[in-house]
Amino acid sequence: MARTVGVLGGMGPRATADFFQKLIDRTPAARDQDHLRVIVDSNPQIPDRSRCILEGGEDPTPALVATARNLERAGADFLVIPCNTAHHFLDRIRRAVRIPVLDITEVVARRAERFSAVGLLATRATVVAGLYQKALGRRGCRVVLPSPEAQELVDRAIFAVKAGDLGPQVRGWVREAARELLAEGAQALVLGCTEIPLVVDPQEWSVPVLDSTALLAEAAVEEALREERTAGMGVVAAAFGD
Amino acid sequence: MARTVGVLGGMGPRATADFFQKLIDRTPAARDQDHLRVIVDSNPQIPDRSRCILEGGEDPTPALVATARNLERAGADFLVIPCNTAHHFLDRIRRAVRIPVLDITEVVARRAERFSAVGLLATRATVVAGLYQKALGRRGCRVVLPSPEAQELVDRAIFAVKAGDLGPQVRGWVREAARELLAEGAQALVLGCTEIPLVVDPQEWSVPVLDSTALLAEAAVEEALREERTAGMGVVAAAFGD
Repeated sequence: MARTVGVLGGMGPRATADFFQKLIDRTPAARDQDHLRVIVDSNPQIPDRSRCILEGGEDPTPALVATARNLERAGADFLVIPCNTAHHFLDRIRRAVRIPVLDITEVVARRAERFSAVGLLATRATVVAGLYQKALGRRGCRVVLPSPEAQELVDRAIFAVKAGDLGPQVRGWVREAARELLAEGAQALVLGCTEIPLVVDPQEWSVPVLDSTALLAEAAVEEALREERTAGMGVVAAAFGD
Repeated sequence: MARTVGVLGGMGPRATADFFQKLIDRTPAARDQDHLRVIVDSNPQIPDRSRCILEGGEDPTPALVATARNLERAGADFLVIPCNTAHHFLDRIRRAVRIPVLDITEVVARRAERFSAVGLLATRATVVAGLYQKALGRRGCRVVLPSPEAQELVDRAIFAVKAGDLGPQVRGWVREAARELLAEGAQALVLGCTEIPLVVDPQEWSVPVLDSTALLAEAAVEEALREERTAGMGVVAAAFGD
């Protein structure tokens, strides 16, 4: 019996919907009953993660923990959080539940480690918190960060997606920032914010594009379908990057 | 404070994802925190509704009820079921929970009643169970049903979508059935199965296309945002078609 996926979502809702769709697309299934059970708590009222990290705004941890516990009670066997910035609070979420919580930065880092340098498109808060610098630094992969001007474009695009604007202007902002990263030596692009894949077409780029939403979906399918008998500590530790 | 939407889903998962996306698209929001809290239990292991109705297969009611109760416990204030066929079991689901459950056939029927005849694209089980004939019959609207051959095409398309095939051949099957319904006098098309909107482009048709997934999403947003003070019996009864 496959394990039930719990999705701590709503940050933002469109990114959660994109994750859910990618999870379905990556599940081998010929009929409804072959699919995974997925419980999503899309809770957009979780206080702004970026504002907390950058400006000392309201701490989102209590709401993140309450939502994680709600999913655990509802029957989730493990959790995923399709929001990179929220991973700044991951340790406290993990301590609050008995079920494992996948780490999106570790999932992406395992795919990025074959490059010597990758460009990061993420919220300024994710950059400031150093989430990818930590995950990639210990693998000897350099993270190329946008200039302040380009970071401003990325943040503006993320806000626009959250407001429902996926239009060409927004796509242009991200494209401009991404070009700068490649000019600075990035060999691949990390879409390290789950809003970003909604305004990036990977086919547009000649370098590999690592979509954190899609990679988390793949990791979730793998985790849900993993044989019970291999669910010992070693494998879980590897899968969860502990 | 908006009410929390509970989605009894997984029938199939792609239809649930489509519903979730349409709910987000129809929510007036400029930032994450403006969106609705949505709890989705996508439970594809619920036994096949059609097989139960048509062949006396395993009764899905216990699994439907358990999933509905799980959503109620998780904090849903009302439920929606983005699967038309599952509405054959609606009364028993409603009796099992204390929160209201929207009726997709009533939601669609309120939009269809201005026509004297509508064509129905739905599972054979939904047709056999008479779900739309009941909801529309009491409004004086005739339901135009596909011929056995056309119904076969519709069912084949629904199975294909559940297996992940949204391709041109599948779209062609639905188109052929729909054309027949219009030739029989239908003034509008009712997409009375939540898999069908995934393979129909409403812009292709000169008649109105009533997408049951989109209409249920609209009704859910309305119900979630409805002023608390109007939540008396009259309005609830109207909204839920009791």
